[in-house]
Amino acid sequence: MASMENDNIVFVGNKPVMNYVLAVVTQFNNGAGEVIIKARGKAISRAVDTTEIALNRFLQDVEKKSILTSTEVVDTESGKTQVSSIEIILISRK
Amino acid sequence: MASMENDNIVFVGNKPVMNYVLAVVTQFNNGAGEVIIKARGKAISRAVDTTEIALNRFLQDVEKKSILTSTEVVDTESGKTQVSSIEIILISRK
Repeated sequence: MASMENDNIVFVGNKPVMNYVLAVVTQFNNGAGEVIIKARGKAISRAVDTTEIALNRFLQDVEKKSILTSTEVVDTESGKTQVSSIEIILISRK
Repeated sequence: MASMENDNIVFVGNKPVMNYVLAVVTQFNNGAGEVIIKARGKAISRAVDTTEIALNRFLQDVEKKSILTSTEVVDTESGKTQVSSIEIILISRK
């Protein structure tokens, strides 16, 4: 199961993309009005895949509300480093 | 040099990210009012890196105008397949 720290946020990591698609679809099927897909670094591509697959194949009444990119500072063993991040907000049209 | 089929479009592929950052910065330094960064599949993460590095380190008077994701159908040896794509439009504030 994809990690879901806050209720309607899906953090995309290195698992197969369908894990995250399932997490997004489950959120909307459980009545969520909005789901936020977040990812950093190389997982950004998988976050976009998750969005496109979920919308194209499973969620006809959901649309992209906004897409934001930013730079985050993260702590690593070798000190602070910058990493790109993406936040895709999906919203139900119902 | 990054591939630049149309004047102000930078297609991000598998080269080092700084190639693409240089291409974007060069466009604005040559007077472009708008530059579009495009990528597909796994290169989407690199397109976001390109955007963030270019804006954070080199282009203080440029901002993100829009970010769009979509699904494209591409031809491969084994037939048609779907791939995610991103389009990031940067615009000069000057």
